[in-house]
Amino acid sequence: MLMELKTPLILVNLKTYNESLGDKAVKLAKIAEEVGESTGVCIGLAPQFSDLHRVATQSEVPVFAQHVDPVTPGRGTGSILVESVVEAGAVGTLLNHSERQLRLADLEASLIRAKDVGLKVCICSNNQLVSGAAAALGPDFIAVEPPELIGTGIPVSKTQPEVVTATVDTIRRINPKVIPLCGAGISTGEDVAAALKLGTQGVLLASGVTKAKNPQQVLEDMAKHAR
Amino acid sequence: MLMELKTPLILVNLKTYNESLGDKAVKLAKIAEEVGESTGVCIGLAPQFSDLHRVATQSEVPVFAQHVDPVTPGRGTGSILVESVVEAGAVGTLLNHSERQLRLADLEASLIRAKDVGLKVCICSNNQLVSGAAAALGPDFIAVEPPELIGTGIPVSKTQPEVVTATVDTIRRINPKVIPLCGAGISTGEDVAAALKLGTQGVLLASGVTKAKNPQQVLEDMAKHAR
Amino acid sequence: MLMELKTPLILVNLKTYNESLGDKAVKLAKIAEEVGESTGVCIGLAPQFSDLHRVATQSEVPVFAQHVDPVTPGRGTGSILVESVVEAGAVGTLLNHSERQLRLADLEASLIRAKDVGLKVCICSNNQLVSGAAAALGPDFIAVEPPELIGTGIPVSKTQPEVVTATVDTIRRINPKVIPLCGAGISTGEDVAAALKLGTQGVLLASGVTKAKNPQQVLEDMAKHAR
Amino acid sequence: MLMELKTPLILVNLKTYNESLGDKAVKLAKIAEEVGESTGVCIGLAPQFSDLHRVATQSEVPVFAQHVDPVTPGRGTGSILVESVVEAGAVGTLLNHSERQLRLADLEASLIRAKDVGLKVCICSNNQLVSGAAAALGPDFIAVEPPELIGTGIPVSKTQPEVVTATVDTIRRINPKVIPLCGAGISTGEDVAAALKLGTQGVLLASGVTKAKNPQQVLEDMAKHAR
Repeated sequence: MLMELKTPLILVNLKTYNESLGDKAVKLAKIAEEVGESTGVCIGLAPQFSDLHRVATQSEVPVFAQHVDPVTPGRGTGSILVESVVEAGAVGTLLNHSERQLRLADLEASLIRAKDVGLKVCICSNNQLVSGAAAALGPDFIAVEPPELIGTGIPVSKTQPEVVTATVDTIRRINPKVIPLCGAGISTGEDVAAALKLGTQGVLLASGVTKAKNPQQVLEDMAKHAR
Repeated sequence: MLMELKTPLILVNLKTYNESLGDKAVKLAKIAEEVGESTGVCIGLAPQFSDLHRVATQSEVPVFAQHVDPVTPGRGTGSILVESVVEAGAVGTLLNHSERQLRLADLEASLIRAKDVGLKVCICSNNQLVSGAAAALGPDFIAVEPPELIGTGIPVSKTQPEVVTATVDTIRRINPKVIPLCGAGISTGEDVAAALKLGTQGVLLASGVTKAKNPQQVLEDMAKHAR
Repeated sequence: MLMELKTPLILVNLKTYNESLGDKAVKLAKIAEEVGESTGVCIGLAPQFSDLHRVATQSEVPVFAQHVDPVTPGRGTGSILVESVVEAGAVGTLLNHSERQLRLADLEASLIRAKDVGLKVCICSNNQLVSGAAAALGPDFIAVEPPELIGTGIPVSKTQPEVVTATVDTIRRINPKVIPLCGAGISTGEDVAAALKLGTQGVLLASGVTKAKNPQQVLEDMAKHAR
Repeated sequence: MLMELKTPLILVNLKTYNESLGDKAVKLAKIAEEVGESTGVCIGLAPQFSDLHRVATQSEVPVFAQHVDPVTPGRGTGSILVESVVEAGAVGTLLNHSERQLRLADLEASLIRAKDVGLKVCICSNNQLVSGAAAALGPDFIAVEPPELIGTGIPVSKTQPEVVTATVDTIRRINPKVIPLCGAGISTGEDVAAALKLGTQGVLLASGVTKAKNPQQVLEDMAKHAR
C-alpha cells in the first residue's frame, strides 16, 4: 500500500547521482520504505525520470518527479509532461530546483498543470524573498535552499537559522497553507531536528543520503529526529 | 528639468519597433515631454538600450530600460548591467516582460540589483497569480498584461476587466506598496480611463503609441483621460 | 533480440502525445516491431523519458531518448543524464529538436556525453546552414525539419525538395559520415519514398504515426516505400 | 574617419566592467584610436549597448556590439535588434560569447540578421568542434576561447597552443573564408605574437586591457607584436 504523504516529510532528491540510478534507485526506495514503516515518518523519493515507473511500481514510497514542464499533451519533444509522471506513478514533483530553474510564468504554468493532474508540488527557492513569491503561487510545499550550501553537508538549519525562520515567517504571512521544508546541507538526524525546530515541517536533501556509506542508517537517524 | 515619476503613469514601451528607433525615439520623447508638461500627466518611455543615453540626455521624460540582467560589474558580455542604464540616464526598468521573461531567482536578483542603484522597477506579469508572486518581491510597479492581448489593440481593461480587478486585489493583499498598472491592448484615452477605473494607477503600452499615425494626439487623449 | 539500427530508418518521435503515453507507447512499439520484422525495415521509437524503460524492456525496437542534457553524474536535478537513458535501454537520442533546442556549446557537450556512453545521436536542424553546423559536430544522423512544417502533414520532401537536397549536399560536403534524415510533415509511404529519392536515408516523424487512426497501416505503408 | 576593420585585429571586449563604462568607454576608445593610428594595427572595441552610440560617435575605432538577438523589428522588448546597433554606429557584433550563449538555430538566425544589415560577425566558440560548427555558419571571424581560461591572464596561445592550431585547421577545412581569432587569457604583446604565430589573425580580449593599470601601454605592446 502506498505510504501516505504527510509531515514531517523527509524528501530525498536522487538527482543524477550514479549511486541512485536505475536498480539502485529501487533499492534506495525499498530502504526508505522500510525505515518509513518502522518509524512512521514519511520518506519520499525523487528519482530520475526514467526511473519513476520502476521505483513507483516496486516500492510503496511516495515518488516525486524532479521537474515537470508547463506543456500540455501534444508537441513538446524532450519535455516532461505532467500526465507522463502521473502515469508512471508519481504523486508529486519538485519545481524550480536551483539546478533546474524556471521562468516565473512557466513556474506558475507548471504548478497549475501539476495541480490539474493531482500532483503535489514542492517549489524550491533560494532565499526568503523568492520563497514569498513562491508562496503566492500556492504550492503544497516550499523548500528553501541557499544554493551555496547545496551538496556541502553544511546544514542551513545550523549555519543560517535566521534565513530559515525568516523564510518560514514570510511563507506563513503570504500563504499559511503552504508547508515549509528546509534544504541544503542536511545530512544527519541532528540537522533534521534543527530544521523542524526552526518551524519547517520537513527536509529536502540529496547527497546526505544518496552518497552515504549506509543510507539506511542515515535515514533511520533522520526519521528518529523527525518524530 | 527631469519630469517627476508619479501616478497616474503612462509608460510607453518602444520595444524594437523601427518606428521608435534612434532619432525617432528622441522625437517621441520630445512629444511625450510636451504632452506631459501641458497635461501634468507623467509619461515615461522605455527605449532600446542603445537609445537610452540619447533619449535621457535630449529629453526630460523619465526613461526606463526594457530589461536588466542580474549581473554585477565584471564578466557579463552581452548582459545589461544596472549601472550601465543608470549611467545612461535611466530612472527605472521593466523586468520580466512577456517578450523577455526571467527565471524567478534571476527576477528577484535583477530587482535587488536595480534597487541597489536606485532604479524604479516595473515587473510585468501575465495573470493574477503571477502578479501575486511579483508583488511578494516588492517592485515599485506591476503591469499585468495577458500575453494574448499584447499588440492587439484589444484592451484588457475592457475585455477582461475581472482579470484586472482580481490582480489589483491580489497585489494589494500581498504588498499594498506596489502600484498596479494595466497593460495589453491599450490604445486610446478611453482604454486608459477604463484601466484607472478598475483600480490601476496607470498603463503600460507600446504599439498604441509607437505605431500610431499621430502619437501626439494619442498621448494627449490618453493623458486627458488619465487626469 | 533487439532489432539492428540500420538504414533506411523510420524514426517515430512520440513527443508528449497522449496517444503514445505509457502502455500506449509499449503498444506502438510492438506494432513497430511487427512491421519491422515483416518488412525488414528498421523502425525506431523515441518515447517520453518515463516510458523508456518499459518500451525498451517490452519490445525489440531501437529506442531513442527525445533529448539528453550535457550533465555528468552528480548534481543535475531535473536533467536527463545519458547514463540514465542507457540504463533504461535506449540505444540513441534525439538532440536539438525544434521543441527542445540547445545552445551550441551544450549541443556539442551533449553529443560528446552521448557518444561516451555509446548512444547513437540524431541532431535535428531547421535548415541547410544549421545542418552544416550540426554535421561539423559529427553526429550519426541529422534530421532536417523546417519548423513551419512540423505537425502539419505537409511533407518537406514534396513541398520543399530543394531544401532537402541542398541540406543533403551540405552534410555530405562537411561530414560524409553523417546520415541525413528527412523530417517535418511526413505522414505517408509516398512521403517516405520522396524523402529517400532526395538523398536522405530515412525519416523522422511524429503525428503521422502517433495520431493515425491505424498506426500499423501507416507504418506498413512507410516501410514498403522505404525498401 | 572611421578606421578600417582589417587584420591583424585586436578586438577588446569591454564586457560589463565598471572600468569601461560610459565615459570610460569613450576614453578607452580614444586610446585605442591613438594606438591604432600610430601603429597601423586595427583595434576594435565592443562596449556595452548603452555606450555604443557614444563610443561610435566620439571615436574612429570600429565598434562591435557584444551580442545581437535574432529578432526582427517589432515585438522584442529587451532584445538587441541588429538595426539598433547599426543605427548606433556599430560595424560588427560578437555572437555566442561564453557569457551569452545562443541556441544553435538562434545563432544562425542572429548571424543572418546581422549580415542583412551589414554587420561583421565574430562568433565565439569554446573548442575545436564548436569552432567547426561555427565555421559552417559562415561568420567573418571565429574567436576560440576555452572558457576555463577567460579572465585568467593565462593565455591559451601559450598553454594550449594545440587547441588553437587544431581549431585553425578545422576552420580552414570547413570554411577557409572565416578569419580565426584567439581569445582567453590574452594580456600581453607576447601573447598576441604567440596567437598570430599559431595561425590566427588577431585576438579577442577583455580584462587584459580594461583592467590594466595602463591600457595604452598594453595596447601599444600588443599592437607592436601584431605587426
